[in-house]
Amino acid sequence: MPDQVLDDISHRRYNPLTGSWLLVSPHRTKRPWQGQQEAPSKNELPEYDPKCYLCPGNKRAQGDSNPEYQNTFAFVNDYSAVKEEQQEYRPDASKEDIAAFLLQAQPVTGRCYVLTFSAKHHVTLADMTAQEILPVIQTWTRIYASHMSSSHPLKAQAEEALSRIPPNPDGEVSRPEHQLRFMQIFENKGAAMGCSNPHPHCQIWTTSTMPEEPGKELAHMTKYREERGRHLLEDYAKLEMEKAERVVWQNDSFLVVCPWWAVWPFEVLVIAKRHVRALVDLSDEERLQFAEAVQEVTRRYDNLFETSFPYSSGIHQAPLDCTEEEAETSWFHMHFYPPLLRSATVRKFLVGFELLAEPQRDITPEQAAARLRNCGGQLYRKLLN
Amino acid sequence: MPDQVLDDISHRRYNPLTGSWLLVSPHRTKRPWQGQQEAPSKNELPEYDPKCYLCPGNKRAQGDSNPEYQNTFAFVNDYSAVKEEQQEYRPDASKEDIAAFLLQAQPVTGRCYVLTFSAKHHVTLADMTAQEILPVIQTWTRIYASHMSSSHPLKAQAEEALSRIPPNPDGEVSRPEHQLRFMQIFENKGAAMGCSNPHPHCQIWTTSTMPEEPGKELAHMTKYREERGRHLLEDYAKLEMEKAERVVWQNDSFLVVCPWWAVWPFEVLVIAKRHVRALVDLSDEERLQFAEAVQEVTRRYDNLFETSFPYSSGIHQAPLDCTEEEAETSWFHMHFYPPLLRSATVRKFLVGFELLAEPQRDITPEQAAARLRNCGGQLYRKLLN
Ligand SMILES: O=P(O)(O)O[C@H]1O[C@H](CO)[C@@H](O)[C@H](O)[C@H]1O
Ligand SMILES: O=P(O)(O)O[C@H]1O[C@H](CO)[C@@H](O)[C@H](O)[C@H]1O
Repeated sequence: MPDQVLDDISHRRYNPLTGSWLLVSPHRTKRPWQGQQEAPSKNELPEYDPKCYLCPGNKRAQGDSNPEYQNTFAFVNDYSAVKEEQQEYRPDASKEDIAAFLLQAQPVTGRCYVLTFSAKHHVTLADMTAQEILPVIQTWTRIYASHMSSSHPLKAQAEEALSRIPPNPDGEVSRPEHQLRFMQIFENKGAAMGCSNPHPHCQIWTTSTMPEEPGKELAHMTKYREERGRHLLEDYAKLEMEKAERVVWQNDSFLVVCPWWAVWPFEVLVIAKRHVRALVDLSDEERLQFAEAVQEVTRRYDNLFETSFPYSSGIHQAPLDCTEEEAETSWFHMHFYPPLLRSATVRKFLVGFELLAEPQRDITPEQAAARLRNCGGQLYRKLLN
Repeated sequence: MPDQVLDDISHRRYNPLTGSWLLVSPHRTKRPWQGQQEAPSKNELPEYDPKCYLCPGNKRAQGDSNPEYQNTFAFVNDYSAVKEEQQEYRPDASKEDIAAFLLQAQPVTGRCYVLTFSAKHHVTLADMTAQEILPVIQTWTRIYASHMSSSHPLKAQAEEALSRIPPNPDGEVSRPEHQLRFMQIFENKGAAMGCSNPHPHCQIWTTSTMPEEPGKELAHMTKYREERGRHLLEDYAKLEMEKAERVVWQNDSFLVVCPWWAVWPFEVLVIAKRHVRALVDLSDEERLQFAEAVQEVTRRYDNLFETSFPYSSGIHQAPLDCTEEEAETSWFHMHFYPPLLRSATVRKFLVGFELLAEPQRDITPEQAAARLRNCGGQLYRKLLN
């Protein structure tokens, strides 16, 4: 097997979802580390923190009070990066050609939400059971469904999903007045990933424009489908199941791998095994299986270095407003980008060479997958108590 | 002027060098920050640290001793990300088509150097004068020249440069046996940018492959030149000099701007005003003017929040091994990517939305440029003493 040699030599790998390369230097973890140490996570948080702006019943920055919610609670971010209403901007049509090309701008409108995962201040997804994560998936699905365009190709699926998921008034948000193009659901977990409040929550940013990353992925998946008549992530998931070396975990509906092209040390990709285009395509059973996959990833992360593992994660799926073709090309998946490399306190910095030249990683995805495969079992914190 | 409205509304801007978009949310700096604080830099370093592996005369990790060098000292990184010799890798030609596409790898060889800026442990580029930075530029030029292919289109320029720059035995490195494709000179400064030793230094990674970022830039510059018959950065520099609002500083040879498409809060681009393709194209006077530009940027950074400002920076120029066409299309420039946003301790995190969807910034490049324009003058530390 000629690929075995990649365990020992420097090489580049190709990311077919984005069309970009990264550098892999497997021997490099041996260098001593004398740089910045991350603060190891203390787990001495109270179940309820009177000063937390996300805990049930508490007041937020702009004066609103949170309801006494049970699990999920959604509200419009008090400091949204995009807004529904703003002054109009139309690029100066009289601009000369060069300036029009070199100084290009487009207005972006939209709405940003914050969504809690639990009423409890001190838990994380890793502490929650799949059954407890299920309401999060249900709320994501309802919010996604409520923002789809009226002519969306998955409208029937959305109605079916809405009819099956019990409504949760605290997790409902109103439909924005103008139709938006894309919804990015993401979580920043841990201070190392810019999270400023440990209360378990994610953000949902909806925008009038298609953002760069999902746009690139859609373009590459479209090209693959045109050229091969199959889905990129369908073929990729099959291939990984055959090879097994990058598989971390799987159930009937979802495959968890350290992708061939992973940039972050323990980067993980959760891929739907069948053609799920968006959250609204999931059956009741699949929603639970997705919750299970999220649980497995986050618990394994925490077990790896026995710490509350920081990461950013996010879901890629069909746009909110899209053509039949775009919906058909979309393949539901979730990325996890965690920064830790060697221990609870030593992270990988994606800096100089990575920013100026090319992303670079120090362990192979195969090595990362082997380690994550081996740290299932009970959450380490539960064993300590 | 219709662009004025961009000061107040959310919008996207286009980066013509890489062909990608970013989100700008000017109103967003108002939100309170309760997250991670960076450690403010203490400046209590000694001029010589007996434990530093970069100080003159000291021992390094693998036992070699540093010479009693004067300013620059270059050596092969003891923990290089790429090496000159390694086992061969040839992708399995019998791989079926799908696997060959989805699991692509290429071997990468090369050599990585560390290069000090000064014999003094406790200085940074901001503390050094342009005259003191000049030997750094000279060493970069000599190292670049010594790695160029024998048929390089700028060979005559290299010989001219070598004949004018006094040799410095401590800054010399031998020529690798195999011709390499690209040289990335970069600095990671400060613990926040993954730097593990405050002794002023940069790294130089040379690789057999063209890395992603300079590759993307070259492709976009090529396209621009084909379509318009001029150079992208030539037109851009002219445009910015006319507009003035993003200009931080300039001398006869170099323009310093916060580029229209800046991602990092105080990102800066240093652009050669005339068609300089690589370091070897610079005249004696231009080398000094480049040193001056680097000095201006780093001193202004430190003055901005009165701290030793962290950043990653790097030079983009013609590849080491390239066609006439590639050399002609290259336009010498230097990027600075600094993470601080609001103060010495509050940085911008490029995390969830940025990684999953699209880079997002909170102040406009015009606001950033105005602030950097206004913090020239003496280095704040000198005024304190
Ligand atoms: O080589 P250093 O300084 O030890 O390491 C630093 O710079 C490298 C190149 O940008 C990165 O890959 C490392 O993550 C970073 O910590
Ligand atoms: O919105 P938050 O949690 O305050 O902010 C965090 O996530 C955002 C979205 O990824 C980033 O733009 C911010 O830099 C980060 O600190």
